[in-house]
Formats: sequence, C-alpha cells, structure tokens
Amino acid sequence: MGCRAEKALHYEDFDRRCILYYALIMAGGSGTRLWPLSREQKPKQSLRLVGQRSMFQHSVERLDSLFPSERIRVVTRAEHSDLLRAQVPTLSEANFIVEPEGRGTAPAIGLAAIHFYRQDPNAVMAVLTADHYIADTARFQKVLQAAEIAARQGYLVTLGIEPTRPSTAFGYIEQGQALDPIDDFKVFRVRAFTEKPNRETAARMVSSGIYSWNSGMFVWQVNRILDEFHRQMPAFYEQLMLVDQALGTPDYERVLARVWPQIAKETIDYGVMEKAQNVTVIPVEMGWTDVGSWNSLAGLLPGDEQGNSIKGEHIALDTHNTLIFGDKRLIATIGVKDLVIVDTEDALLICARGQEQQVKQIVERLKANGRDDLL
Amino acid sequence: MGCRAEKALHYEDFDRRCILYYALIMAGGSGTRLWPLSREQKPKQSLRLVGQRSMFQHSVERLDSLFPSERIRVVTRAEHSDLLRAQVPTLSEANFIVEPEGRGTAPAIGLAAIHFYRQDPNAVMAVLTADHYIADTARFQKVLQAAEIAARQGYLVTLGIEPTRPSTAFGYIEQGQALDPIDDFKVFRVRAFTEKPNRETAARMVSSGIYSWNSGMFVWQVNRILDEFHRQMPAFYEQLMLVDQALGTPDYERVLARVWPQIAKETIDYGVMEKAQNVTVIPVEMGWTDVGSWNSLAGLLPGDEQGNSIKGEHIALDTHNTLIFGDKRLIATIGVKDLVIVDTEDALLICARGQEQQVKQIVERLKANGRDDLL
Repeated sequence: MGCRAEKALHYEDFDRRCILYYALIMAGGSGTRLWPLSREQKPKQSLRLVGQRSMFQHSVERLDSLFPSERIRVVTRAEHSDLLRAQVPTLSEANFIVEPEGRGTAPAIGLAAIHFYRQDPNAVMAVLTADHYIADTARFQKVLQAAEIAARQGYLVTLGIEPTRPSTAFGYIEQGQALDPIDDFKVFRVRAFTEKPNRETAARMVSSGIYSWNSGMFVWQVNRILDEFHRQMPAFYEQLMLVDQALGTPDYERVLARVWPQIAKETIDYGVMEKAQNVTVIPVEMGWTDVGSWNSLAGLLPGDEQGNSIKGEHIALDTHNTLIFGDKRLIATIGVKDLVIVDTEDALLICARGQEQQVKQIVERLKANGRDDLL
Repeated sequence: MGCRAEKALHYEDFDRRCILYYALIMAGGSGTRLWPLSREQKPKQSLRLVGQRSMFQHSVERLDSLFPSERIRVVTRAEHSDLLRAQVPTLSEANFIVEPEGRGTAPAIGLAAIHFYRQDPNAVMAVLTADHYIADTARFQKVLQAAEIAARQGYLVTLGIEPTRPSTAFGYIEQGQALDPIDDFKVFRVRAFTEKPNRETAARMVSSGIYSWNSGMFVWQVNRILDEFHRQMPAFYEQLMLVDQALGTPDYERVLARVWPQIAKETIDYGVMEKAQNVTVIPVEMGWTDVGSWNSLAGLLPGDEQGNSIKGEHIALDTHNTLIFGDKRLIATIGVKDLVIVDTEDALLICARGQEQQVKQIVERLKANGRDDLL
C-alpha cells in the first residue's frame, strides 16, 4: 500500500510490483431474463447455474492466485450485499462497495474508482463481471495480466471475445490499428463500439474477422477512467466528487445515500467507452459464456444424447433438445422437444426455445398484476 | 326394510315401493393414468378434477332425491375409505363396504350383493362409478329409474353410452333384439360385449349405429347377479358364501380379511357379463365423460380462445391447445402448443397431447426406481 511508481515510459521498464492492481467484480445486476430462477432478491450472480457454486462464487474463485483478497472489490446493491457476502466467506465487509441503489455500470465503476484512487492514484483496475461463465480460467488470468500491461501505458483496455456465431445478443467491438502484441495476445486500437446488431449485420461482422464481442470487462488505470468521467460525464463527476470528499469520514454513508439516487443511470459503454480516447481491445478465447438467457445456459449444462440439458431429477420419454432446470420436484416429460422448463418453488416456466426473450414480458405482466412476490 | 314383494309378472303391475333399490358406488380404483395428480393414496375419485368437488362427491350428489342415503353404499379399499368418508359427511360408516384389498370389480360387486341380499333378496342394485363425469344429472336419474324397471323383469341391465367418436379407450356393446321401450329409453338385448377396439373397428362400430360404449354401470336384481356368480364364477361364489355366513356376526371382519386375499382378481365384464343370460343395454345420452386420461379431462375444463384448458394461475404468451392443471404455483408458458402440463407439490408432468397413455410408463419407471413416495 502507498507504493508510488514513477510514470512509466515503456511497460517493459516498469516495476509492476509497485502499482496496485485491483479486481472489481460488478455484482449489481438483477437480471429478469432468467426468471423464474432469478428474482429481485435473488439476482443472477447469486444463482447456482453451473455446478454447485454460484456465478458470483465462480467469479471470485477465478481470481485466485492472481489477486490477493485485499485487492478484490465487489460492487453491489445494498439489497444484495448480505446474500453475496454470505456466499464468499473469504471476503470481508471491506471487500464490498455497496451502492444504495443501482444506477448502471458507469456510476458503479466511478464509485469503485474513487476508492481505489485513495490507495493509489496510478492503480490499475480490472472491471469484471459476476454473471459470465469462463471455462478457461488460466487464459482468463493471462489476459488480465496482458491487459494490465496495456493499461499502464494509459490505454482503456476492453476484453473482446472471439465471436463463434453471429449473435444478436451482444455489442461488437471493431478492431482498428494493431499495436504491439503482449505475450501471445494481439492488441488493437478500437475503431468503434457497435450496439447489438441484427442477424444480417452480425453475420457480416463475424465473417469480416475484425470484430469481437464486447464482454463488458475492462482494464484501465484509475486516474484514466476518472479523467474520462470528468470529460464525458461532468455532471456525474461532480456528484462523484461529493462522495469522494466524504470518503474515509463518518459522513460517507450519509453523503452516498443522498447523492446516489440523484445520479442519472448510465452504462459505461454509452457513457464513456464509445467516445473515450486511447481505447484498445484484446481479443481472447477463453470459453466465455454470457449466461444471459436460458438458451445460453443450456449450452453449459451436461447434455444427453437427445440434446437435452438437465439439472435436477427427471424422467424423459421421447424428449429432445430440451432444457430442464429444477431441483424442487421430479420432472417427467413425454413427447416434447425444443422446450425450456424451469421449475422453482413458486413459479414454473415452460417456454419454446428461441422465444426466451419473451420471459421479460412475463415479468412485466407480473409487475402489472402486482405479483411482487414473484419478482 | 324387510318388505317383501310378490314375484313380478309384468313391471307395470309391480308395486315399486316394496322392493329396495340400492345404489352401489364403485370407489375402489386408483388410476395411474392421471399421475402425477392421482396417487396410490390419492385415487382418481378423490380428486377435484372438475369444479370444486371431487369426483366421488359428484357421484354421491348425483343420487340426491333418487336414493335416500341409507340406500347408498360405497365399496372401497381399506386404504382409501377414510379419505372418501371425510369427503362426504352425509354418509356414515354404515354406508361403506370396505374391501381389505382390491380384487377387481366382480368381487367388489359380489361383496356388496350379499350385503343387499340380507336386506332384501329381491333388491335391485345399481352399480355406479365414482370416476366418471356426468353433465346431465336429470337424465342420469331417469335412466336409473328405467333400468330399475328392466332389472325387475330379471334382466342384467347395462347402461350404454351413445358413442360420439370412434374411441379406442372403451369397450363396446352390440345391440340385439329390441325390447319394449321404458319411458323414452330404448331397450335392447345385448348381442355381444366387445373389448377396446382398434380405430378402424371403432369407426365401423360407431357408424353402424348399433353399438354403445360400455359405461361400466349396471342395474340388476341382487339374486340374479348372485346366480350368475354361482354359475360362471363358482370358486369365487364359494369364497363369497364364506363371507356371507359371517355377515352380521363378530367374525365378519376376520373372515373377510382371510378370504379376500385368496380371491382371484376378475372384472365383472369378463367374469360375468360376456356370458351372462338375459343381458340388456339401455343407450343413454347424458354428457358422460370417463375422466380416464388428461386428454379427456381437458374437454371438461373451461377453455380459452386459443383452445387452452386451464386450472390454476397462469400467464400464457402464444400458447395453444394446452391443458394446464395446477394450483401450487404460477405457471407461465411461452410459445407452446399441444401440451399437457400437470403440476403438483412433488412432481411435474409435461406431455405432448396424444401421448398421455405413456404416463403409465412414467409410473412404472418410478416403481422400478423405488420412488414409492411419488406413486
């Protein structure tokens, strides 16, 4: 702590050990797309979707040996912090940065940034997700190390996922000028961030070979991202500085509770990345899955010869290409195909595969009907 | 009680009030075809399938005003008698004839017959079902009155259901010589009982106009059916007489418990009706449904414009021709059609319509897996 390094001239000259590297796990989301399993009080990252550990537990464990636990921070909403803390006993209260309420990714990152800045203005922070599955942990750790090196040169580094299909569920990042590779990772300047495309555009982008999926994971110096907030989101920056002034004083909680609800919701992509300077992308193949829908989860569960992905006790007769997710009761299926079946204590979803995006409409309907108990 | 009538010469001369007319509700079945709702300890007749009353409650209420409650008997298996008695408080222990275990319809009817014979050897008994739905109660009561008249002439009367489609789920009864009509009911001698046919045969029989479905409901004099047992099932008749000798003595329960397990299982159709003498059929249209499968139940539940039949709380998006039966939790469906969805506390069935007969295989699988808790 408190170690200050000289301004780096070139990363190879740089004493890495003297600048702090923080991992920030973004665990503020709720995620209605995995209803009825995910709920307002049981967000996606807290769920045991793959194996016996929750997505959040996986996210913390992925950092093992790369980050000492005192360099890990979790930003989460007040209503979820107890649940998440209970899941990872190796983290203490000090590891959690609690938002009074969620205001989008930009404010969450800003809040964490002022915490890190107090420790080390030159600190590097990795912004990581709590609801993605990453099969290849070793590769994930390697790309974080490579990204740290790029971040020390002043770049805002985005981790890009090598696209494996023309997905319309992700934003895309267009590669520009190639920079020097780091280890065996290629590094490109970012030419443009693209919103979720239609299928045609997605197909074109994937076949061009110069696009990555936007993983929502970033690595940068704390002072660089604060500069970008200052330049691009000045109103938020002013509000953030109010919180910064109270940081470390008994007023912190009170000020945060007063300021935070006034902050406009904003994502880091729209608010900062699209017009930021010196943005780079490091494409990486690491078995990444955004567990954003029942369909994407199906690909992660053990399957049988009929293409079924099953969690829970099940008897299947003539059942094909069906995701069955439940551990509350026995599920028997006869003569069904291409279904998603999700069984929970108080709600049951049966959905045709390919129509999972309509789950949101169910949630909206419940909201309209005042069924808060099911949200 | 104890009123004895002269032998009837012709039913019009007959003083109806002097011969006892009993209703026997056969409530001994279990029914695996409605799994997971029906269970060994929760037989079909005890279920609230249509409306807020169980099938058994409907069966008793259908007799209102036609049979005083002391003329109603329910034959059931020991393991179900408490459940059924609790459902109909107007019936007392004396209304129940309890079998130590189920041995098929022939022994159940024989056991009831010796009870009735003690009251009146000339008594007429109507053998009725506890798991059929009958929409037109008035017509049902009328046909029971007409059948009583025919039974007094010595006929074994079967109630035939006018077939509305070439069902392969029922046995068929072929009409022979027409007898005098009774009220507005036609009466025919039975030429033959036919087992469940294939679709082709069923279509031929239905279009011929001389077949009825076998409803499993019969009306006859007690001494006539006992004679048939004597003639056609002599071994059973001997066993039944052992029970008869103990009837009304403190030994009854003990003798019944000893004799009953030794009795060979037999249905009244195979054991008696197919080769009985003087069998007639009275065809009747009374909105009859054998609630023998999820598919048949679907026709009885309120439907929506998309052809869905729904019991329980449900949100449907793009859902068609689907039976949803559950009241344990909210059920949401998206983009599904032609399904049967049955949700219970500990088991969930999702089955393509038209494949409901495979539910039995699920039950067999559970049995093989030792999952007695789900049977």
